[in-house]
Amino acid sequence: MLIGVGPGDPELLTLKAHRLLRSADVVAYPVARVEAAGMAVAIVETYLRPEQRRLPLVFPMVTDGVALQDAWRAAATALAQQVQAGHRVVFLCEGDVSLFATGSYVLLALQRDHPDVPVEVIPGITSVAAAAAAGRWPLVFQKEELLIRPCPDTPEAMETLLDQAAAKGTVLALLKLGVRWQWMQPLLAARGLLDQALFAERVGWSDQRVMAATEVQAEERPYFSLLLVRQGTNAVLP
Amino acid sequence: MLIGVGPGDPELLTLKAHRLLRSADVVAYPVARVEAAGMAVAIVETYLRPEQRRLPLVFPMVTDGVALQDAWRAAATALAQQVQAGHRVVFLCEGDVSLFATGSYVLLALQRDHPDVPVEVIPGITSVAAAAAAGRWPLVFQKEELLIRPCPDTPEAMETLLDQAAAKGTVLALLKLGVRWQWMQPLLAARGLLDQALFAERVGWSDQRVMAATEVQAEERPYFSLLLVRQGTNAVLP
Repeated sequence: MLIGVGPGDPELLTLKAHRLLRSADVVAYPVARVEAAGMAVAIVETYLRPEQRRLPLVFPMVTDGVALQDAWRAAATALAQQVQAGHRVVFLCEGDVSLFATGSYVLLALQRDHPDVPVEVIPGITSVAAAAAAGRWPLVFQKEELLIRPCPDTPEAMETLLDQAAAKGTVLALLKLGVRWQWMQPLLAARGLLDQALFAERVGWSDQRVMAATEVQAEERPYFSLLLVRQGTNAVLP
Repeated sequence: MLIGVGPGDPELLTLKAHRLLRSADVVAYPVARVEAAGMAVAIVETYLRPEQRRLPLVFPMVTDGVALQDAWRAAATALAQQVQAGHRVVFLCEGDVSLFATGSYVLLALQRDHPDVPVEVIPGITSVAAAAAAGRWPLVFQKEELLIRPCPDTPEAMETLLDQAAAKGTVLALLKLGVRWQWMQPLLAARGLLDQALFAERVGWSDQRVMAATEVQAEERPYFSLLLVRQGTNAVLP
């Protein structure tokens, strides 16, 4: 019922997500405001059938906790009503349902407010896995660990994070680079890390850019941009 | 060419992986020894056509660095030879190609030894995403971060890791629990964390077990078992 549709490429849906999507009566998806286009539904547009009912659910782009909670609960109630009316309903989530996703909040609201409604969650390809694949950049080797998090807000926080990561063999996947790339690029350059970092933006979309960080100038990048950083060498081959 | 086939459920292949697999002339996959069954190929068995050539590649289950490097390089050379002979070849990887996967080592060997051979990498669903989905366990919320790593080897290392994770709002995904669950279960119980942890083993396979950690006794579990741990509450809903 909650379906991860992957980061952008319609072919990165799983067979299971595709099957459940195709057999749904109602296709629900997040939008930022009434009448706005939804990114998750745009990914699967090619698979939708005309007779499937579309149910956009509004999640405002705000930081007000109460407004967000209201949106999650309203979405959960709207989905529960569809299920209770006997419809097969899917709620689309960009990327994976569980990783920094609106779907996680909707899931929580369903579990709290509608515990009797059966919920199934179908995982999706994350932007991190898709970026690593597109860049042919091995993400984590056996003696490393992977930390996935939003990009730190300040250069100071990033310096601290890099120091901690270097000490532990942590590979960093930093999401939502955006404007922070302006200071991130010189910071990585000063540490000699640009060579070992992969820059990716709008992974899976037709205007995707995935490249060595050395090739990206220090300027503002889109919100949906991410960085993979490994320190030291992965000396697994001589 | 390097294809993630997901953690076990054949329906968790992506549409792209399925298409490339079906159109391949040669299907290569890792095995632990000659004549052994391969897990990755078992996942896609139902999709293979009789006329597709199967190419098992041996990766011995050893810790000897030289023996492993020889295996990665031999596999890369075998794949490169197939490509150079004009065949469409895929190499199957359980889970995602980039995350603690044999595929990452093969990719590295291809890039080093056969830089002219074109390589495409198709991402796959990880066992972490599949476990979170199966357990309807929201993996990371906005103000958290996710650390994916092998389970620590000792209770002392685990205590340190939990302290560090608590300080930062880090959700832990600990792979390869296996025998360590014997000491992990009482350790989590002493910290009052069993309620908030998800235990998963053999995710995606028919004998999969995904459940609250409270339900799993302190005994040895399979190698392919993992734990998701969140400390504190995810107080995103009142």
